[in-house]
Amino acid sequence: MKNFDINEDPHRRFNPLINEWVLVSPHRAKRPWQGQNETISTEELPKYDPTCYLCPGNVRANGMHNPAYESSFVFENDFAAMKQDEIIFEEDIKHTFFKAKPEQGISRVVCFSPRHDLTLPEMDLEGIETIIKTWQREYTDLGNIKYINHVQIFENKGSVMGCSNPHPHGQIWAQSSLPTQVEKTQNSLKAYYDRNKKTLLEDYVQAELRVGDRIVIENDHFVALVPFWAIWPYETMIVSKRAVNKITNFTAEESTAFAKILKQLTTKYDNLFNTSFPYSSGIHQSPTDGLEHPEWHFHMHFYPPLLRSATVKKFMVGYEMLGESQRDITPEKSAEILRQQSEVHYKSLVK
Amino acid sequence: MKNFDINEDPHRRFNPLINEWVLVSPHRAKRPWQGQNETISTEELPKYDPTCYLCPGNVRANGMHNPAYESSFVFENDFAAMKQDEIIFEEDIKHTFFKAKPEQGISRVVCFSPRHDLTLPEMDLEGIETIIKTWQREYTDLGNIKYINHVQIFENKGSVMGCSNPHPHGQIWAQSSLPTQVEKTQNSLKAYYDRNKKTLLEDYVQAELRVGDRIVIENDHFVALVPFWAIWPYETMIVSKRAVNKITNFTAEESTAFAKILKQLTTKYDNLFNTSFPYSSGIHQSPTDGLEHPEWHFHMHFYPPLLRSATVKKFMVGYEMLGESQRDITPEKSAEILRQQSEVHYKSLVK
Ligand SMILES: O=P(O)(O)O[C@H]1O[C@H](CO)[C@@H](O)[C@H](O)[C@H]1O
Ligand SMILES: O=P(O)(O)O[C@H]1O[C@H](CO)[C@@H](O)[C@H](O)[C@H]1O
Repeated sequence: MKNFDINEDPHRRFNPLINEWVLVSPHRAKRPWQGQNETISTEELPKYDPTCYLCPGNVRANGMHNPAYESSFVFENDFAAMKQDEIIFEEDIKHTFFKAKPEQGISRVVCFSPRHDLTLPEMDLEGIETIIKTWQREYTDLGNIKYINHVQIFENKGSVMGCSNPHPHGQIWAQSSLPTQVEKTQNSLKAYYDRNKKTLLEDYVQAELRVGDRIVIENDHFVALVPFWAIWPYETMIVSKRAVNKITNFTAEESTAFAKILKQLTTKYDNLFNTSFPYSSGIHQSPTDGLEHPEWHFHMHFYPPLLRSATVKKFMVGYEMLGESQRDITPEKSAEILRQQSEVHYKSLVK
Repeated sequence: MKNFDINEDPHRRFNPLINEWVLVSPHRAKRPWQGQNETISTEELPKYDPTCYLCPGNVRANGMHNPAYESSFVFENDFAAMKQDEIIFEEDIKHTFFKAKPEQGISRVVCFSPRHDLTLPEMDLEGIETIIKTWQREYTDLGNIKYINHVQIFENKGSVMGCSNPHPHGQIWAQSSLPTQVEKTQNSLKAYYDRNKKTLLEDYVQAELRVGDRIVIENDHFVALVPFWAIWPYETMIVSKRAVNKITNFTAEESTAFAKILKQLTTKYDNLFNTSFPYSSGIHQSPTDGLEHPEWHFHMHFYPPLLRSATVKKFMVGYEMLGESQRDITPEKSAEILRQQSEVHYKSLVK
C-alpha cells in the first residue's frame, strides 16, 4: 500500500466541461512502439499551386473561380454536410428507437491566406488578426440567420487529421441544433453559472494560474494551458481571462492578444517535433439562439494527435472507443515540454 | 419546402444507448477525395514469425517466453495502462476543477491462435469457439477479483486502428471503475428497464427485425445489424436475441451461434474491399460489481474506419471532435451493402 502519487500512479481525472472521465497512465509512455508510422510531407510547398482549388484565381470542383483574394477568403463548401433547404417534418413521438429530425445548416471554407505555403504559425500577426476579423464577421452573419443557433468554427490541420489540402484553411459549420459536445458543455457551464454567478472557466483559469504547472503561455488577456483533464498527448485550450462569451465581444486589445497567443502556441507546436504539427482546433462560444448566455466563456480547443514524434500518434481506439479516453503522459509533463519550446519558428531559423 | 426524406436530407439521429446525436449527410458520399490514403500491407504473412512477440515459443519484451500454445493464449500486458497496486487515497472534495482518483486494474492480451497469419474470419468455427471460451473464463476470473467491477474485452485490428502486431489478438482491460462509455450505456439501460421491465436491446432488436432494412445477418440467437444511430460508415453491432446479460450466461447453442455470426460478419467485412478489414470491436455486458444487472443485454460493437475503399477512411476530426459525430452514408445503405457481401472469404477463393 502506498500513497497516491498523481505523477506516477494510474488514475482517472474528471472533465467538468462535459462530465466525463479520462484514464491517465503516467508510466505507460515508456512502452516501445512497433505500430503504424505516419507519413509526413517534407516537400517544400510553392507559394502558389496551379492545381490547388483554394489558391487565388483557381477553379473549384463546381466550376467557380476563386477571386484574386489578398488576405482571407470565405466561400460555401461545395460538398456541405448540411443544406439550407427548409424541410417539412412531423415528429413521430412513438419512435423510441428510430428518433430522427432534419437539420438545416451552412458550411463554409475560410482560406487563411492567399499563400499556399503558409500555416498559422508562419503568418504575421496582421494576417492572423485578419482571420480573427473574418471569424467575427462570419459568426455575426451566420448567427443572424434566423434558423442558425450554433456556429462551429474549426480547423483540421495536416493529412493525419483528414485535411485534404495543405493550403491554410479552416471551416465553419453553422446549424439549427446545438451539436452534442456543445450541448454537454452548455449544460455544465449553465449549472455552474446558476450556482456561482461566475463562469466555470473564469474560476478555472484563476485556479490554474495559481497552480501554474499546466500553463503554457499567458498574456494580459489569454491563457494557453493543458487542461487538467486533457485527453490528447499535447491537447491545449486557449481561454480568455475575462468572461467574454463570444468572439464578437472581444475588445481591440483582446483581438491582438488572441492573435499573439495563437501564433505563439502553434509555433511551439511546430517546434516540438520540428514538423508542421497536425491538429483539429475549434472555438466554443455562445450559441446564436438570441438568448443572453452569460454562462458561456470563450475558449478554443486544440486536439493534436502526435505522441512521441512527427510520425507516431496516439490511437484513440478499442479501449478508448468502448471504455474511455486514455493518455500515456501527464498533462503537467506535456505543459512543461510545451513551455520549453521556443517561440521562434524552426523554419525561420533554417532560412 | 419539401417533406423530410431520411434517405436524402441531412438529419440528426438519436442514440438511446448513450443519449447522443449523430449528424447524417446522405448526399455527402459523393464528394471527391484528395486527402490521405492509408497504406495496406498486401504482404503474405508467414504461419510463424520468429520476430513476433506473440507467436508460440518466442520471447516478449520483458524477457519471458511464450509457451508452445496450440489454441488461444492469455498473458498480462507487459505495458499495462493500469496497475494492481492498492493505493491509499483521501479525496479532496474541495477540488471542483482538479478531481482525480487512483484506478486499479489489470490488462491482458489474448492471442486468438498460434498461427501468425490468420485473422478471425479465416479461423474455423472451433477456433472461434475457443476464443469465446477464453473470453468467458477471463470474464469470470477477472470479474471475481474483489476490486474489479468492469471487464472490457476488445480487439484493435489493423495498423490503422493502432494495432502494432498482425498476429491475431485482442485485449482485456479490467478495472475498478465503470469506464465513461459503459456508465452512459448503463444509465440508459437501467432507465429503460425500470420503466418497461424489459431490456432496451430486447425491444430494439425486435423493432429492427420488423423493419428489416438495417439487418445484416440473423440466426436463431443473434442479430448483426447496423444500428439506426451508427456513426462509423460500416459500424455494426451483434446483439443476442435473448436478454442475456453476460457472455458467461450463454447456452452452448448460443456460444456456437455467436461463433458463427462472428465469422460471417468479419468475412463480409473482409470481402467488402477485398482487404483485411480494420476495426476496433468490443463487448458491452454486465459489470462485475456483484449486483444482478437485469438491465444489461449482451452486445458487441464493431467500429471500422474505412469509408470508400481499402485505403480511404472516414476521419472523425474537427467538427466531429468539437461538435458531434457525422456520417456520409446512411446506415440503411451500409446494411444493404454488407448484406450483399458473400460469406465465403475472398482469400479462400484465390487459393
Ligand atoms: O495496447 P496496444 O495495442 O499497444 O495499443 C493500442 O490499444 C490501446 C487500447 O485501445 C490504445 O490505448 C493505444 O493507443 C493503441 O495503440
Ligand atoms: O470537409 P473536409 O475537410 O473535406 O473533411 C474533413 O473534415 C470534416 C469535418 O470535420 C470531416 O467530416 C471529414 O471526415 C474530414 O475528412
